[in-house]
Amino acid sequence: MTIQVFGHKSPDTDSTGSPIIWAWYLNQIKGTAAKPVLLGEPNTEAAFMLERWGLDKPEIIADVEDGAPVVIVDTNNPAELPANVNNADIQGIIDHHKLVGGLETKGPIEIRVEPLACTATIMWKMIGKDLAQAPEGVKGAMLTCILSDTLEFRSPTTTQEDKAVAHALADDLGVNIGELAAEMFAAKSDVSAFSDAELIRMDSKEYEVDGTKFRVSVLETTAPDIPLNRKDSLMETMKTVQSEDGVDQVLLFVVDILKEEATLLVPNDLVKSVAEKSFAASVSGDTVVLPGIMSRKKQIIPNLKV
Amino acid sequence: MTIQVFGHKSPDTDSTGSPIIWAWYLNQIKGTAAKPVLLGEPNTEAAFMLERWGLDKPEIIADVEDGAPVVIVDTNNPAELPANVNNADIQGIIDHHKLVGGLETKGPIEIRVEPLACTATIMWKMIGKDLAQAPEGVKGAMLTCILSDTLEFRSPTTTQEDKAVAHALADDLGVNIGELAAEMFAAKSDVSAFSDAELIRMDSKEYEVDGTKFRVSVLETTAPDIPLNRKDSLMETMKTVQSEDGVDQVLLFVVDILKEEATLLVPNDLVKSVAEKSFAASVSGDTVVLPGIMSRKKQIIPNLKV
Repeated sequence: MTIQVFGHKSPDTDSTGSPIIWAWYLNQIKGTAAKPVLLGEPNTEAAFMLERWGLDKPEIIADVEDGAPVVIVDTNNPAELPANVNNADIQGIIDHHKLVGGLETKGPIEIRVEPLACTATIMWKMIGKDLAQAPEGVKGAMLTCILSDTLEFRSPTTTQEDKAVAHALADDLGVNIGELAAEMFAAKSDVSAFSDAELIRMDSKEYEVDGTKFRVSVLETTAPDIPLNRKDSLMETMKTVQSEDGVDQVLLFVVDILKEEATLLVPNDLVKSVAEKSFAASVSGDTVVLPGIMSRKKQIIPNLKV
Repeated sequence: MTIQVFGHKSPDTDSTGSPIIWAWYLNQIKGTAAKPVLLGEPNTEAAFMLERWGLDKPEIIADVEDGAPVVIVDTNNPAELPANVNNADIQGIIDHHKLVGGLETKGPIEIRVEPLACTATIMWKMIGKDLAQAPEGVKGAMLTCILSDTLEFRSPTTTQEDKAVAHALADDLGVNIGELAAEMFAAKSDVSAFSDAELIRMDSKEYEVDGTKFRVSVLETTAPDIPLNRKDSLMETMKTVQSEDGVDQVLLFVVDILKEEATLLVPNDLVKSVAEKSFAASVSGDTVVLPGIMSRKKQIIPNLKV
């Protein structure tokens, strides 16, 4: 049975590219039938990656069947995975997030988690010299994933390993990193076609702090004005998203990749208090700029206080 | 702060040796202060390993403190770990068991799980050529762990990788595998000093099947008569262990390493039914021989039916 390889439910570049990379490896190097699939529509940057490297858009699936062989990449969180995932035959997990618990396997399987910025960097290490056999598209997806997750090495999640692997791939492909990243970030910033609710849910994770459930949403962009000009309607839509998703509060951070700062929308006193307690920010008005804040994983989540 | 490296609560050879191996690697190769610790008394084979290779017996700890840096090896099951483990600073997990869920980390860490017979085999792969710098005791512990977990390559959990690594280590150390394994198994079989309850809990894991809680205990031995001559008092003591440990039934398998078979004690109709349904055995009397059954992980647990 063909192994389905997938990332999380809001396919960004790493969750779209890493399944493609790993399915190639399983098929071509390991001789095991595998195919990449998605759990939702890829975001605009991920769609750019597919086009840039001539890759087919993977099929989007709604759930997995009992006993179906799967490999999970770029998450280990059941909340971000198909509802039936624990009844599938999970054969491998490759990830770079904290362990949240909840995934269970029937027997021992291969699990590789490393504190690197990007799943593709871990795959580069696992594939080793067999990568020489990979087509340009697979190497290009790898490079694009790393530049995406590191925000072209600006994010504090970036490690020396991510950087070294990206430079090696760029040299091999004859690609200028700055030019590729600029095209990627332009694609990611092109969000005018999305509804407010789609923007809020696009890159979003749920976290609970002292009993308060947050949906922590991030929009990484080189054009912060596009979402910020819509802040009134975004804040209005938060209420709908909150009630639909069963969370107490949406926190929407518009991350300016080039200026290396985040703007948090402040619709009410709860968010004002979170901003003050978590980031020592002084809030007046309905937005607050947080200098240097770029990473949900490294900077936002670990500091979140109610 | 010194990292504490430990395995599970019933330290067998792998759970005693792997912390020693990994603490050496962290100290000597990675330059990070680390020490091996145990969560209980090592079993007789593990004690033999320490003596055979001139290794100090690691300190036994009762729990871990909030925020203490730890690396967990040879398990990922919170039930087999210190009560406070999820409040410690878990920095790494190296294991070869199925993922049970329940461990959580504050941030992304290094996790390596592979479907190999032995944790030490995974460490051999992770340490790579730096192993050349290891003292004889570290290499000897590695070899002893692999021979223990594979029952000298007889267990169906054995992979080609475990075998190849053991042979490479034996060549390097100038050790005859058959002779070392015979000494190990003699040490493991020397259980006359233990009480019935100690024997039942020595190598034991809890599993629930359709609402019935089992304590699945295994005694791997080259001298099955030692425990089997005590079967009446072992079966009497099961009742006490069951009530003390809150399980419905103890299943005690005496595994004859050389004959490659297990003898299951059958104290009542529940166990008789389990033996018949799980292993298609025909039971008369208070024991039943199960030819070829050697591995709890591969053969007993996956087949257990009530």
